[in-house]
Amino acid sequence: MGQVMAQGLGACPQFSLVALVDLHEPAELFGARYVAALDGLDPASVDAVVDFSNPEGVVSSARWCAAHGVALVVGATGLTDEQRQAVEEAGAKVGVVMASNFAIGAVLSERFAAIAAPYFERAEIIELHHDRKVDAPSGTSIAAARAIAAARAKAGQAPLEDPSTRQTLPGARGADGADGVRIHSVRLPGLVAHQEILFGGPGEGLTIRHDSFDRESFVQGVALALAAVDATPRFLDGIDSLL
Amino acid sequence: MGQVMAQGLGACPQFSLVALVDLHEPAELFGARYVAALDGLDPASVDAVVDFSNPEGVVSSARWCAAHGVALVVGATGLTDEQRQAVEEAGAKVGVVMASNFAIGAVLSERFAAIAAPYFERAEIIELHHDRKVDAPSGTSIAAARAIAAARAKAGQAPLEDPSTRQTLPGARGADGADGVRIHSVRLPGLVAHQEILFGGPGEGLTIRHDSFDRESFVQGVALALAAVDATPRFLDGIDSLL
Amino acid sequence: MGQVMAQGLGACPQFSLVALVDLHEPAELFGARYVAALDGLDPASVDAVVDFSNPEGVVSSARWCAAHGVALVVGATGLTDEQRQAVEEAGAKVGVVMASNFAIGAVLSERFAAIAAPYFERAEIIELHHDRKVDAPSGTSIAAARAIAAARAKAGQAPLEDPSTRQTLPGARGADGADGVRIHSVRLPGLVAHQEILFGGPGEGLTIRHDSFDRESFVQGVALALAAVDATPRFLDGIDSLL
Amino acid sequence: MGQVMAQGLGACPQFSLVALVDLHEPAELFGARYVAALDGLDPASVDAVVDFSNPEGVVSSARWCAAHGVALVVGATGLTDEQRQAVEEAGAKVGVVMASNFAIGAVLSERFAAIAAPYFERAEIIELHHDRKVDAPSGTSIAAARAIAAARAKAGQAPLEDPSTRQTLPGARGADGADGVRIHSVRLPGLVAHQEILFGGPGEGLTIRHDSFDRESFVQGVALALAAVDATPRFLDGIDSLL
Repeated sequence: MGQVMAQGLGACPQFSLVALVDLHEPAELFGARYVAALDGLDPASVDAVVDFSNPEGVVSSARWCAAHGVALVVGATGLTDEQRQAVEEAGAKVGVVMASNFAIGAVLSERFAAIAAPYFERAEIIELHHDRKVDAPSGTSIAAARAIAAARAKAGQAPLEDPSTRQTLPGARGADGADGVRIHSVRLPGLVAHQEILFGGPGEGLTIRHDSFDRESFVQGVALALAAVDATPRFLDGIDSLL
Repeated sequence: MGQVMAQGLGACPQFSLVALVDLHEPAELFGARYVAALDGLDPASVDAVVDFSNPEGVVSSARWCAAHGVALVVGATGLTDEQRQAVEEAGAKVGVVMASNFAIGAVLSERFAAIAAPYFERAEIIELHHDRKVDAPSGTSIAAARAIAAARAKAGQAPLEDPSTRQTLPGARGADGADGVRIHSVRLPGLVAHQEILFGGPGEGLTIRHDSFDRESFVQGVALALAAVDATPRFLDGIDSLL
Repeated sequence: MGQVMAQGLGACPQFSLVALVDLHEPAELFGARYVAALDGLDPASVDAVVDFSNPEGVVSSARWCAAHGVALVVGATGLTDEQRQAVEEAGAKVGVVMASNFAIGAVLSERFAAIAAPYFERAEIIELHHDRKVDAPSGTSIAAARAIAAARAKAGQAPLEDPSTRQTLPGARGADGADGVRIHSVRLPGLVAHQEILFGGPGEGLTIRHDSFDRESFVQGVALALAAVDATPRFLDGIDSLL
Repeated sequence: MGQVMAQGLGACPQFSLVALVDLHEPAELFGARYVAALDGLDPASVDAVVDFSNPEGVVSSARWCAAHGVALVVGATGLTDEQRQAVEEAGAKVGVVMASNFAIGAVLSERFAAIAAPYFERAEIIELHHDRKVDAPSGTSIAAARAIAAARAKAGQAPLEDPSTRQTLPGARGADGADGVRIHSVRLPGLVAHQEILFGGPGEGLTIRHDSFDRESFVQGVALALAAVDATPRFLDGIDSLL
C-alpha cells in the first residue's frame, strides 16, 4: 500500500514526495529518500506524513507528528480504543485526518445511503469480497448499516423489523448490521471488494453499488485529506466532510 | 394465476381453452366455459388439465385425470410426500408433468449452474424477493444449490468448505444451501422474484441472474409441458428435459 | 395511471379523494365521484387536482385550476414549449408542481449523480426498458446526463471527450446524452423501467441503479407534491427540492 | 501476460516449465531457462509451446512447432486471414489450440447464450471495459452476438428486428452485433473487462455476466488446452469443446 500511495501521490503536481519510511528499503523509491523510521527525518523538511502501516506504527507516527508540528493522514483499521485516542490527541497539536476507507466511491455510497434511507421502507446490504478476507461482515458495510439506521432514527422512523419470514435454513436472512438493516457477506475467489446498498419501497428499488478494483482508488481520497491538513490543530474522522 | 394461465394459453394457436375450473366463477372466461369442479366436465372434451391450485386440489385433479385418461400439468409447491406420491401415481396411467417453477429462465439458470459448477472454485447464491414472501431461502435457490453440489460431487470434487472467515455478526455468511453452497436471502418491498448464482475462480467471476417480473413468465413453460403430454403414461418432474 | 393514483392516494390518511375525472367512467371509483370534466366539479370542494392525462388535458387543467384557485400536481411528458408555458403561468395564480418522474428513487438517482460527478473521471448511463417504449434514450436518462454535465461544468471541469476508441460497428459507444456523457438504451420484453448511472475513476467504480417495477412507485412522490402545494402561487419544476 | 502464464502454469503440478522465450530477459524466470527465441531450444526438451505474443510471433512459433513436432497453444487476437491460415496449417503437423479468450467464464458465457437464445424473444449485450481499450465493441461480444444469431437461425427463428423505437439521439440503441443482437460498449476508467448478455421474454429476464478481474483468469483455460494437445496433428479453434 505504501508503494501505491508513493506512486500515486508522487504523480500529483501539488505534492512533493520527501521520503519513504519503512523497516526495509522498498524496491522503488519514486525519486524520494528512504528512511527506516520517522526519527531519521528532519521535521522541517516535511509538511505532512501519510501512514498506512499498522496500529502500532500509526500511534508512533501520531506522537512524532504531534511533537514536531507535522500534519498527519492515517489510513487505519483495527485500532483499539486506546490507540484511536492516541491519534485523536495528536489532533490537538496538528492537523490529523484518520479514515478507514479513502475510496471516494465508498465515502459517497455511505453519504447517499444516509440521504436515501428515510424515503424507503427497508434497506439491506450485500458486500462481496475475495475469499481471503479474514472477517465478515466488512467494516465498511457495518458503517453503512449504522449510517442508514441513524438517518432513519433522525427522521423519527422506528428500527426495521424483519418481515415475518420463516427461515428454513439458519443464516439465510444474513446478519443484523444495525437496527434491522441486514448485511449479506459473499466470499468468492476472483472478487476484489464490492458493496451494494439496496433500498426498496412500493414498486421501486434503489441500489448504490461500489466496486474497488485496485488500491489506487485510495489515492484521490488521501490527496483530498492532505490538501485539508496543515499544522493547525484539527482532528477529522473520515473524509466525508471534505467532499 | 389461473387467470394468467387462461389468458396466456388461450392466446396460443396450438391450444383450445375448454373450461375454467374454480370454486367461484372468474370475472373473465376468455371464451371458455366455467365449471365449479372437474366432475362437471365431459372427459372426452378435454385432452389435458392445467392445475395451479393448491396441494389438495392437485391431488384431486391427479385422481380425476388418471381415472379418465386425461393428461395433467401441475404447478405445485408445498406438497407433502404423500401428496407428491398421489400425483406420481397418476403418471402410471396418463402423461403428467409436475414442476415447481415453469419460468424458462429459472430452469435454464439451474442447468447452467450445474454445467459451470465443476469449473469454479466456489459458488454462492443471492435470491431477492418482495418482503411478503413467507419463507427464506426460496425453494428455487435451494434446488440450485443442490444442483451445484451434485455437479461438483459428480466431478469428484469435495464439498465446499467455508473460507476461514471470522463472523463478527452471526448470519453474515448466509445459509448453507447444500455442501457449503451459501444462500443469501434479501427481502425488500418493490422487488418481485430475482436470483443470482455467482461463481468465482482465479481472477474471474461468472454470474447467472434470473428476474421474474410477472407471472406470465410461466406460460411458455406450461405450453412446453402441455405439448409434451398426452394419454400415454409418463411422469416428468420438472421441465428441464423439455428444453 | 389514474386508477393507480386514485387507489394509492385514496389510501393516504392525509388526503380525501373527491372525484375521478375521465372521458369514460372508470371501472373502480375508490369511493369518489365520477365527472367527465373538471367543469363538472364545484371548485370549492377541491383543494388540489392531480393530472396524469396528456399534454392537452394538462393545459386545460392548468387553466381551470388557475381560474378557480385550486392547486395542481402534473405528471407530464411530451409537452411543447407553449404547453409548458401554459402550466408555468398557472403557477403565478396557484401552487403548481410539474414533474416528469415522481418515483423517489429516480429523483434521488439524479441528485446523487450530480453530487458524484465532479469526483470521477467519466460517467455513462445504461437505461433498460420494455421493448414497447416508443423512444430512446429515455427522458429520465437525458435529464441525468444533463445533470452530470452541469455538475462537472460547475466544478470547472471540461466536457468529456470520448476515449480514442475505434468503433468497428457504428453505435457501439451509444448516444451522446450531454457533453460526452454516453447513454446506452436496452430494449427487451419482460423489463419494466431500469437505469444505471456508472461512474469510473482510478481503481474504482460507483453505480447508481434505479428499478421501477410498478407504477405505484409514483404515489409517494405525488403525495409529497400534494403536501407542498396550496392556493399560494408557486411553480415547482420537479420534486427534487421537496426531498 | 507471459509472466502471468509462467507463474500460473509453473504452479500446476502436471506441467514443468522449461523455458521463457522473450526478446528481453524477464525479471522473474520461475525456475526456468531464458532463451531469446525458440531456435535457442532443443525441440526434444519441450512437449508444448504457449504463445501469447503478437501475430508475427505466433506465426513464427507455429512454423517452429510444425517443423519439430512440438504442440502449440496460442492466445491470439488481431491475426490477418493469412496469419490464421499459417497457424491452422501447423495443426496438420502437430496438435494446435488457438483461442481469443481462455477465461473459462467467457467460454461458458457464450455457450450458455447459444443454449438460451431460442427460448427468448430478444437478446442484447452490454460489454464494459477500461477506457484504454482501443476498439469497440469487444471481439468477445461480437462472437457472443454471432453465437446467439446462429442458435436462433438453427432453431428456425428470424433475425431480430428492432422494436419500433424512435432514436432521438443517434447511437442510443447501440451497434448491430449480428442479425439484430444489439451491443452496447461502456468505457470507464477503473473497470477491467466485463460482459452481460441479457435475454428477455414475457415477464422475465435472464442475464449471463462475466467479470475478468485479472489476467490470471486465463491460466485454467490454457492448462485445459495444454492437457488436450500433443504431437498428434489436430487444430482446435477455441476451447469450448474442451469444457
